[in-house]
Amino acid sequence: MTQTHQTTTENEADCFRDECGVFGIYGKPDAAAVVTLGLHALQHRGQEAAGIVSFDGKQFSVERHVGLIGDTFTKQSVMDRLPGSRAIGHTRYSTTGGEGLRNVQPLFAEFAGGGFAIAHNGNLTNALTKQRELQKRGAIFSSTSDTETVLHLIAVSERDRLVEKFIDAVTQLEGAFSFVGLSGKKMIGARDPLGIRPLVLGDLDGAYILASETCALDIIGARIVRDIQPGEVIVITEEGPRSYFPFEKTNPRFCIFEYVYFARPDSTIEGRNVYEVRKKIGQELAREAPVNADMVVPVPDSGTPAAIGFSQEAGIPFDLGIIRNHYVGRTFIQPQSAIRHMGVRLKHNANRWAIRDKRIVLVDDSIVRGTTSQKIVQMVRDAGAAEVHMRIASPPTSASCFYGVDTPEKSKLLASRMSIEEMRDFIRVDSLAFLSINGLYRAVNEPQRNDQCPQFCDACFTSDYPTALTDQEHTESTRVLSLLANNG
Amino acid sequence: MTQTHQTTTENEADCFRDECGVFGIYGKPDAAAVVTLGLHALQHRGQEAAGIVSFDGKQFSVERHVGLIGDTFTKQSVMDRLPGSRAIGHTRYSTTGGEGLRNVQPLFAEFAGGGFAIAHNGNLTNALTKQRELQKRGAIFSSTSDTETVLHLIAVSERDRLVEKFIDAVTQLEGAFSFVGLSGKKMIGARDPLGIRPLVLGDLDGAYILASETCALDIIGARIVRDIQPGEVIVITEEGPRSYFPFEKTNPRFCIFEYVYFARPDSTIEGRNVYEVRKKIGQELAREAPVNADMVVPVPDSGTPAAIGFSQEAGIPFDLGIIRNHYVGRTFIQPQSAIRHMGVRLKHNANRWAIRDKRIVLVDDSIVRGTTSQKIVQMVRDAGAAEVHMRIASPPTSASCFYGVDTPEKSKLLASRMSIEEMRDFIRVDSLAFLSINGLYRAVNEPQRNDQCPQFCDACFTSDYPTALTDQEHTESTRVLSLLANNG
Amino acid sequence: MTQTHQTTTENEADCFRDECGVFGIYGKPDAAAVVTLGLHALQHRGQEAAGIVSFDGKQFSVERHVGLIGDTFTKQSVMDRLPGSRAIGHTRYSTTGGEGLRNVQPLFAEFAGGGFAIAHNGNLTNALTKQRELQKRGAIFSSTSDTETVLHLIAVSERDRLVEKFIDAVTQLEGAFSFVGLSGKKMIGARDPLGIRPLVLGDLDGAYILASETCALDIIGARIVRDIQPGEVIVITEEGPRSYFPFEKTNPRFCIFEYVYFARPDSTIEGRNVYEVRKKIGQELAREAPVNADMVVPVPDSGTPAAIGFSQEAGIPFDLGIIRNHYVGRTFIQPQSAIRHMGVRLKHNANRWAIRDKRIVLVDDSIVRGTTSQKIVQMVRDAGAAEVHMRIASPPTSASCFYGVDTPEKSKLLASRMSIEEMRDFIRVDSLAFLSINGLYRAVNEPQRNDQCPQFCDACFTSDYPTALTDQEHTESTRVLSLLANNG
Amino acid sequence: MTQTHQTTTENEADCFRDECGVFGIYGKPDAAAVVTLGLHALQHRGQEAAGIVSFDGKQFSVERHVGLIGDTFTKQSVMDRLPGSRAIGHTRYSTTGGEGLRNVQPLFAEFAGGGFAIAHNGNLTNALTKQRELQKRGAIFSSTSDTETVLHLIAVSERDRLVEKFIDAVTQLEGAFSFVGLSGKKMIGARDPLGIRPLVLGDLDGAYILASETCALDIIGARIVRDIQPGEVIVITEEGPRSYFPFEKTNPRFCIFEYVYFARPDSTIEGRNVYEVRKKIGQELAREAPVNADMVVPVPDSGTPAAIGFSQEAGIPFDLGIIRNHYVGRTFIQPQSAIRHMGVRLKHNANRWAIRDKRIVLVDDSIVRGTTSQKIVQMVRDAGAAEVHMRIASPPTSASCFYGVDTPEKSKLLASRMSIEEMRDFIRVDSLAFLSINGLYRAVNEPQRNDQCPQFCDACFTSDYPTALTDQEHTESTRVLSLLANNG
Repeated sequence: MTQTHQTTTENEADCFRDECGVFGIYGKPDAAAVVTLGLHALQHRGQEAAGIVSFDGKQFSVERHVGLIGDTFTKQSVMDRLPGSRAIGHTRYSTTGGEGLRNVQPLFAEFAGGGFAIAHNGNLTNALTKQRELQKRGAIFSSTSDTETVLHLIAVSERDRLVEKFIDAVTQLEGAFSFVGLSGKKMIGARDPLGIRPLVLGDLDGAYILASETCALDIIGARIVRDIQPGEVIVITEEGPRSYFPFEKTNPRFCIFEYVYFARPDSTIEGRNVYEVRKKIGQELAREAPVNADMVVPVPDSGTPAAIGFSQEAGIPFDLGIIRNHYVGRTFIQPQSAIRHMGVRLKHNANRWAIRDKRIVLVDDSIVRGTTSQKIVQMVRDAGAAEVHMRIASPPTSASCFYGVDTPEKSKLLASRMSIEEMRDFIRVDSLAFLSINGLYRAVNEPQRNDQCPQFCDACFTSDYPTALTDQEHTESTRVLSLLANNG
Repeated sequence: MTQTHQTTTENEADCFRDECGVFGIYGKPDAAAVVTLGLHALQHRGQEAAGIVSFDGKQFSVERHVGLIGDTFTKQSVMDRLPGSRAIGHTRYSTTGGEGLRNVQPLFAEFAGGGFAIAHNGNLTNALTKQRELQKRGAIFSSTSDTETVLHLIAVSERDRLVEKFIDAVTQLEGAFSFVGLSGKKMIGARDPLGIRPLVLGDLDGAYILASETCALDIIGARIVRDIQPGEVIVITEEGPRSYFPFEKTNPRFCIFEYVYFARPDSTIEGRNVYEVRKKIGQELAREAPVNADMVVPVPDSGTPAAIGFSQEAGIPFDLGIIRNHYVGRTFIQPQSAIRHMGVRLKHNANRWAIRDKRIVLVDDSIVRGTTSQKIVQMVRDAGAAEVHMRIASPPTSASCFYGVDTPEKSKLLASRMSIEEMRDFIRVDSLAFLSINGLYRAVNEPQRNDQCPQFCDACFTSDYPTALTDQEHTESTRVLSLLANNG
Repeated sequence: MTQTHQTTTENEADCFRDECGVFGIYGKPDAAAVVTLGLHALQHRGQEAAGIVSFDGKQFSVERHVGLIGDTFTKQSVMDRLPGSRAIGHTRYSTTGGEGLRNVQPLFAEFAGGGFAIAHNGNLTNALTKQRELQKRGAIFSSTSDTETVLHLIAVSERDRLVEKFIDAVTQLEGAFSFVGLSGKKMIGARDPLGIRPLVLGDLDGAYILASETCALDIIGARIVRDIQPGEVIVITEEGPRSYFPFEKTNPRFCIFEYVYFARPDSTIEGRNVYEVRKKIGQELAREAPVNADMVVPVPDSGTPAAIGFSQEAGIPFDLGIIRNHYVGRTFIQPQSAIRHMGVRLKHNANRWAIRDKRIVLVDDSIVRGTTSQKIVQMVRDAGAAEVHMRIASPPTSASCFYGVDTPEKSKLLASRMSIEEMRDFIRVDSLAFLSINGLYRAVNEPQRNDQCPQFCDACFTSDYPTALTDQEHTESTRVLSLLANNG
Repeated sequence: MTQTHQTTTENEADCFRDECGVFGIYGKPDAAAVVTLGLHALQHRGQEAAGIVSFDGKQFSVERHVGLIGDTFTKQSVMDRLPGSRAIGHTRYSTTGGEGLRNVQPLFAEFAGGGFAIAHNGNLTNALTKQRELQKRGAIFSSTSDTETVLHLIAVSERDRLVEKFIDAVTQLEGAFSFVGLSGKKMIGARDPLGIRPLVLGDLDGAYILASETCALDIIGARIVRDIQPGEVIVITEEGPRSYFPFEKTNPRFCIFEYVYFARPDSTIEGRNVYEVRKKIGQELAREAPVNADMVVPVPDSGTPAAIGFSQEAGIPFDLGIIRNHYVGRTFIQPQSAIRHMGVRLKHNANRWAIRDKRIVLVDDSIVRGTTSQKIVQMVRDAGAAEVHMRIASPPTSASCFYGVDTPEKSKLLASRMSIEEMRDFIRVDSLAFLSINGLYRAVNEPQRNDQCPQFCDACFTSDYPTALTDQEHTESTRVLSLLANNG
């Protein structure tokens, strides 16, 4: 008998759903307003719910809302309830049901020594195992978020001071995590020893900022200080930042898919501008899989930078052969059943006057289940294209991510069950090519993948997971597991 | 530095705010619909928020809403989310703010051994002390409700089985409690050893029911089986009920104020019908404090039964000299500031054509701060009454309740700072009389109060508290205390 | 083919649904706040929706909301949108659907000469006929309310000044109406020539008030000036009130059912206090239909005053044998289907300890369909009553009302299809008696009904309609008619 | 004394706000679901509110909602209330306040002969004058929309049949209009004699469609039949379409700004694909105002097609130097005051790594007040651009539109008060060039503007208004005028 008081909906979307975005600022009046802007800039990392916790020197205030930042955290009444010059926030992909707000972060706990709020981007691969241990000794969980496990590990730590307890907790974790925490005196950031998810340090007129991406610093005109290092715990107080490195030293393995799809093109991570990487991906792709064609057409918007790169390298004109309707988010929420079958046209329309009788190179970032590609290709063919050549700006995605990306089960990934020729047939294109894994590494300025000691986490392409997957190995019930795995 | 993430509003109402109502049923299809009806009948015990947890054999479902049962739990969509043949519910006085739903019961926890929901009527006088102990060993509290303390005590109990853990937990508690709990296999009821708050057992076509009052059984045509005994823990399974008596034997002390004001007149508690008791109170009052008058007028609705008793004993006609507007609840929620000073007339209006030139006996249940009485008397005088004689259907309330009633601080109780003559002067009546404490005991069929071993909890009249008040004694910060004391 | 863009739900309630309440004030800062209080006191005349129009010397502001006044018009934001020292308001029984707010009054129109708002209590019996004439000449109706017909008649009047146009319009109307209107300069009141619905003039510190009942003056401490006379049009300007009597002189026929059921007991209409009338009704009933019994029990709350009168006349004790749950309005809104069959117990519960083995006189105000009476009697019998004698505080209601009361069709009225003996059998009482028509006239201090020239409208008892029923006579389609007839 | 019951907010946005979009379908089950999709594709023409009227053979159903189509008309409950196989819809820019829904179209009227719904894209330049005439003869207006004037003109027409009345009404109108109407038997389309706004006829499996743009046909896979002709009234019945040409023959003057900005790039209007026109505009611009630069950067998204054309013609690489955040609509709704000054970065961010040290050609569609351009240029300079050359894809906009576009007053248009050199200085670019008027005509395949008989409405560039502006000429009060002029 499984006892759960909340259900999760299966990931039915044919895309990689984003993970989460985190943002914190320490020492700026109306800190929550700044966090609102930061989260707005990170909305591509999670668009369905958000939360902010502020501290005004005496007490913590918490607001959590379902909906876009621009709809929920821009009301004066909401902002008035978040006073103080220190605040952290979180934006996440999805919540469901009336109880859903329980899982919206930051989570907050009143410890014996005072309050503590925490926001998390990533996913812990031993959270369920830890949760069971904690429950056995009497812990009560009030959310289904793996982040709550961290709160409990801090609460039961026998160390004396908060920073020590925090380090005690995070050193017990496996998986990917970029945390931002807020206590009555400190803002704390932490990145897992492999640095799988991004986290940067910024500065706005002397106030320190922690954010998932640099674009969240740009929106408020903040200065980019540096990336938080893999394995670094940074503690910001009124005296400024101080860093700890409690993890055993290891080679970092940043998520290469952040460059392919997740991060915003105007962000720079670990010294590489995302837009530049994507253009280089397009160039590599044009070199690896050239084609005779009249027009390079991106699947907007995620395929656009690679398509520009492809066009420039191949000397084939770049054109907007597909127009995107931006009045939905990344998918149409709750489509009415009568129109569900019309699917993809809610978001994209082929510009038939541009496409007709042309040989088209269609550039997209990746193929997940393949159904979206199938529909887009059909739409382009219906619009009169003479030939359709698909070029994918990444290697075939054949494995699930356990580090904070909401991927379908492996068995539903097209590349896990078909050869490239079978896929070409399935999506009905004249030719299909993916970027090679080494092409991808070249696009991020590595000579090639170092198979002995890979420079990035590329498990979704290679099944080479850089951490233990404890929960996976010890659990039969994937149903229960998914409760935790869906957390951003 | 106090760190709290939620504020509570002071009790400014000039009445005793009700406590809470609990209801559970085990073994009836659409159990949640039955609970909805039961809570509707208990709405006088708490009208601002309610919650229901149901169990369908596989999983728990939770719904909590601010508002009247009849507005929130009657929507089909809400009821559809509460499947199953076992369910418990709770109705409570008030919640504030966006986070307020966290305090709406039943609370739910996922223990190592499965889910458990609990609803509470009463108040624990050592909850804060226990909470601090639990926090020191790592517990994280997600509400400000004393009920959550019980969940944690169960969670950390080292006993093996749920019933043992539950008994382990409740035997550590001080104060007043009537609990209804629901696990994957059992419904559990418990009443504190003094039996301060009511709890009854009912039966509907073979399904067992636990409810705060018999009126919640009547609404669904259920049979009244018996009162749960003080100190009894009753465990209902598919095999039927089984009782445990884990507390040291002591003399029961049921809250006598339930008879005066809280309980519904059509309920019967410990063998006494509430309406009959109130009529007898009126008769005692007529004998103790007779008056020459033309008309007995109740302050509706709580003074009505005593006024009928007074009228019948005194031979003075009973008349509706004050009309109540029922389109508000017990107070006008969020009155617009421009009209706040108009106060009491939102609820009551003197029927001047009935009252003019008459000598009036005004019967009310109690006096709290006295401001309401003052306004009502003024209104009756403005309507042309020749004389106004106030008769109060209870002794002077001079002490706070720590057992689940939201009373003002002692210093704000009129009877704690004035003599009866001063009170008469303050509310400007021609005469004022309260029922004597022995008169009240006679109305409940006791010969008199046994001062050595009082038959009831009457602390609000006598300051004779029947339990330890641990939190009170160990706490300087009444601010923090109030966070817990406001729980119903 | 009938073309309508809104549906109305059939009246399925087993009671006479109330009509509407109107209230206006001229010359008081924050006039809308005063109107809010007045409407709150009139909520028994219509509880599901309300509207207020205010005028601040420059422009009109309109707010209309579904829900109780105390929930909707007490928000600061709503009141802030209603500035000005002149305002009128309306409370009405029901609206349905998303477009429902269109029918919430006051209605507002921008005439060539300026804005005008109007609120209506009553029902016009030639509205549909007039509407069709107006539509033929090009008028566009934006609501399904008969009140809009009045606006159009004003708009198309060829008279010069607003008051003349208004009089031109109302003198074309048949049926029952008490209007309150507001222009840029004037507040206008009008009562139909028979004075079927009430309307009173009040004074608050020099500001004039028009209100449906005196209880709406009491709530704000306003002085009762007088009843507006049947056939009077009163125009209030900064110079004070001025009256017009444009109708042919006729004998007034106030609705006698206002005394029986609709009006609030603390109101006084045409010199008679409603509570006193109801007590006299009870006394008459005790004389006309005496019975040997132990206890007089009202069906609360509408039967209570008559039960007190019956008890005092008969010398049988009055007792609360049925307890009413006030946490619903007059009916449970949208009951969940699973509990629908439990019906009446949502509102009433028999107090079995008071009733058991007693011979009961049950006093109710009227019988509509009979199903409620049937259930209440059954409940009283289930509680152990030895005998149940039903006494009804009005004659049998055997005909529909076309003057603003939402009655079922005649065929659904129990008294239109059964003899008294058949009714007694249907509701299963030991004896059943209704007040005689002359007994009712005696209770309002008339010697008897003058059949040649009845002193009241008593059509619901006698089928003697005092006005033409033009729409009824000219319409086959009762479906369309009902769109207008349901207006309050 | 002005009497208005609704206020309108001034257009403070620094862009041309879109007009409206209309869509109707006749003869398809679940017609409203199809309309929902059509309106979704037209959301760029008005994104803040929408309405649908459906007809099921017996009655009309109306739903109007504020918010995006994808949020409001995708709920099952909403769609269930819109049954039938015929429906029309409307999407519009903005509404304000509680009464705002009154102005959301389609408007509906119950005429003597039956119901009629109408949706309008455009603006009537004699609506206020007509409204005053109608009010003088007794018409009551329930909205502040010029579209209601058309309903009244139909209602008072003395012709016999609906189509005749409709033609009688529209032939009295001045200004721009594309109407879609729905009666019990017919769907009617009409385009003003100059054809200022677009309207196309489509076909979906035999069901006829009227829509503002072809992209609304593409989304559902409907076939494009043809543009409705300027001055054409098309009546669709079960027998199919029938056309009337009641207007005097004149040369058409379609709005040329639809090509520049309003229409979606994948639409084709009057035989010209919008994307192709915009690319040609870019090419013309590159020829008229060449520049030595490293990179062509569009102001996304409206400048993108022209930037591609410029890049291809000039041989300078096209790059995404500015990234747009799509998680707002076209502006951030109700920005919190504390962050208001941060303005444009909510929507755009310069990609500093791409831009740094580069000579940039910045391509935008137009300049309205100039403040947005100023901020974008500053942002690009802050990101390190070596030079910034602004190229505008249209001539200077120096005059207001009275044909359905919500432009600022003439005095607030930058080009109406500055020379090009002054503008260059104001927005601080190294060079600034606008497309010439003849360059714009060449882009739409005309040899040049025919000044005697211009082929398009280009009044916003030339002040050459193609219709009378009756309301403008006869009205002092621009305040009142604006109530009507803001309608889309």
